[in-house]
Amino acid sequence: MALIVQKYGGTSVADLAKIHNVAERIIRTYQAGNDVVVVLSAMAGETDRLAAMANAATGDKPTPREYDALIATGEQVTVSLMAMVLNSKGFKAKSLLGSQIRIVTDKNHMAARIQKIDADFILSELGKHRIMIVAGFQGVDRKGNITTLGRGGSDTSAVAIAAAIKADYCETFTDVDGVYTTDPNVYDKARKLKKISYDEMLELSAAGAKVLHQRSVELAKLYNVPLYVRSSFNDDEGTLVTREDEDMEKEVVSGITYDRNQAKVGVIHVPDEPGIAGKLFTPFSERSIIVDMIIQNASVDGYTDLTFTIPKKDIKQVEQLLDVVSREVGAERVHIDPDISKVSVVGLGMKSHSGVASKMFTTLAREGINIQMISTSEIKISCVIGAKYTELAVRVLHDAFAMEIGQ
Amino acid sequence: MALIVQKYGGTSVADLAKIHNVAERIIRTYQAGNDVVVVLSAMAGETDRLAAMANAATGDKPTPREYDALIATGEQVTVSLMAMVLNSKGFKAKSLLGSQIRIVTDKNHMAARIQKIDADFILSELGKHRIMIVAGFQGVDRKGNITTLGRGGSDTSAVAIAAAIKADYCETFTDVDGVYTTDPNVYDKARKLKKISYDEMLELSAAGAKVLHQRSVELAKLYNVPLYVRSSFNDDEGTLVTREDEDMEKEVVSGITYDRNQAKVGVIHVPDEPGIAGKLFTPFSERSIIVDMIIQNASVDGYTDLTFTIPKKDIKQVEQLLDVVSREVGAERVHIDPDISKVSVVGLGMKSHSGVASKMFTTLAREGINIQMISTSEIKISCVIGAKYTELAVRVLHDAFAMEIGQ
Repeated sequence: MALIVQKYGGTSVADLAKIHNVAERIIRTYQAGNDVVVVLSAMAGETDRLAAMANAATGDKPTPREYDALIATGEQVTVSLMAMVLNSKGFKAKSLLGSQIRIVTDKNHMAARIQKIDADFILSELGKHRIMIVAGFQGVDRKGNITTLGRGGSDTSAVAIAAAIKADYCETFTDVDGVYTTDPNVYDKARKLKKISYDEMLELSAAGAKVLHQRSVELAKLYNVPLYVRSSFNDDEGTLVTREDEDMEKEVVSGITYDRNQAKVGVIHVPDEPGIAGKLFTPFSERSIIVDMIIQNASVDGYTDLTFTIPKKDIKQVEQLLDVVSREVGAERVHIDPDISKVSVVGLGMKSHSGVASKMFTTLAREGINIQMISTSEIKISCVIGAKYTELAVRVLHDAFAMEIGQ
Repeated sequence: MALIVQKYGGTSVADLAKIHNVAERIIRTYQAGNDVVVVLSAMAGETDRLAAMANAATGDKPTPREYDALIATGEQVTVSLMAMVLNSKGFKAKSLLGSQIRIVTDKNHMAARIQKIDADFILSELGKHRIMIVAGFQGVDRKGNITTLGRGGSDTSAVAIAAAIKADYCETFTDVDGVYTTDPNVYDKARKLKKISYDEMLELSAAGAKVLHQRSVELAKLYNVPLYVRSSFNDDEGTLVTREDEDMEKEVVSGITYDRNQAKVGVIHVPDEPGIAGKLFTPFSERSIIVDMIIQNASVDGYTDLTFTIPKKDIKQVEQLLDVVSREVGAERVHIDPDISKVSVVGLGMKSHSGVASKMFTTLAREGINIQMISTSEIKISCVIGAKYTELAVRVLHDAFAMEIGQ
């Protein structure tokens, strides 16, 4: 008997038939003697439909407060449907909105942060032998305005609730059945990992793996919530995201991932003076443009080149920005290349094993793949390469680390 | 400068173009120097779509609590869209749900009654020069569960808010531009009334006119809220529903209305003993079947016939019920006739004018229309006739009372 939080994503509740399937899974978990708190997303496509309506109604400038009130209806629909389906099957279940369970957030609409969850309320409801169906992605600020949590919000809701009520573990059900050594759509030799550490999962998410949002993994790590990634369409074991242990450290590499959504920006021949990088990047952060890898070449004759990556969707804005800023800092020219891709090797074992970087570089070189940028963290090495080499790079790196990968 | 509550029905906010039109009307009202509280219904068809989903998901047995949480999203969508549209046009507006404005109701889901509205909150928000956009049809019980008010709920919300904040008047905008002497679709000589009393409007609504729901009129009468019925598609004056005054009493008849949704039930040759009617009708009220006109013939040899009308949609249930009950009370047989219609003449003037009833009966007789049942109130006479005569009856009665009708 355990206290379990289950989160089902939009594809798992995309229509009434799928909602019935999920209901059966909830019932099985409950009948096995567990207490169950379920967190749901909106039906697949519903959030996009509502967002499109808001944009069409306002010429793409919806008020954040009203936008949140509008799109929060997506989760309200799925939780009330799920609760009534469970009721109709003879089980006591109850839907709860962010405002009812009191998931209190800051007032930063469209990207709010959870501040407080009323754990006593949830536990007292569970004490009445109910299954709780909670709307993910939404909360309320202290004045009772509806807020939403932004990308990956339902994952974040689920982990935050699990942390608050000290659940034994949190399961997130999606349309993939776990975390893979790489994207199975790119390489059929990808294998599912049984276990992965929070830090590796964070690096994988940051490096482009879409299975869990970074914020939810950060939260799980912070509160030490064991997190299972499972498919709602089968009964596979899935992948456990948890604290690192001895087993994990034996592995050198746990995954190869890639990100096609970046573009490379070069600001060429800039006077190498103190404060240049600050001048260059302050306007980016003011506009919430996330600059990822940043490389500054060694200075030659008092001049240097700055190279960095930005999200592809921000190219236009960055062009306009640099048009002004590059002149201010005295750069010779700016070059933006959208045809790149970031390939990363992630693994806890890197901490104690040397040779991972050189193996990565020689493997790519052997295939004639030029490395344009390199960045490293304690457990990750990322290389920017030409976009057309993405799949090839993923496959040869997966093969190269095959002995060590994903036990 | 006035304090005005405006209510827009589902057809007035059926799509984004119509929402923009309504926004313009709200802005005109606001710019004329008024404080405006707007109450909205869900987009036309949306409540039905959600209800169908709930029924499909549960085999027509949705839990009332979850049903309310589900269909309340319909109004949440329109109020947040309207508020963001007004914001995008440069006006301070704010959407408020039943739970936020705290429209507190009893816990009778799907047909809740309003118990309390936080007028101070609304007035303090208005004090900040905001336009308030309130979700109609919904409230919360004292435990924070979402409730809905049942049929005509948004009209009721609007009038209740107008009463709570002591608004100067309440306007309800629909797809018709006022209250007519009869249904213009049935008779092109129908005229729009400038003014009508609460009591007449109540009788018209009860007798089948669909322009305002009875509950909202009752509430308006109780709190003496002047109520304008207007079209959101033009700038016509509409009809004012208000306290009766001298002008009104000069009129004998204010409207002819009809109701095709009734069926006639005859329970034939019942022993005329005390308690028979109770035995017969208790099972009806237990199942919330509304029995309208009830007529008991004079007793002959200790036996009598009971005739009454029920909503057509309940025929099946009534048949099953009477199968049992008619035997219990010793009736000879039961006869159900769905091919009937109720035609009514309504007018304050009846109180002081005699001859309305006889004029109604002779007018119908002249056309060979047989009257099957008659019921009267202080200001209404209703006759049950064969369904096929409905339009004819409406026209000849409208002509017969033409001199007195709708000044």
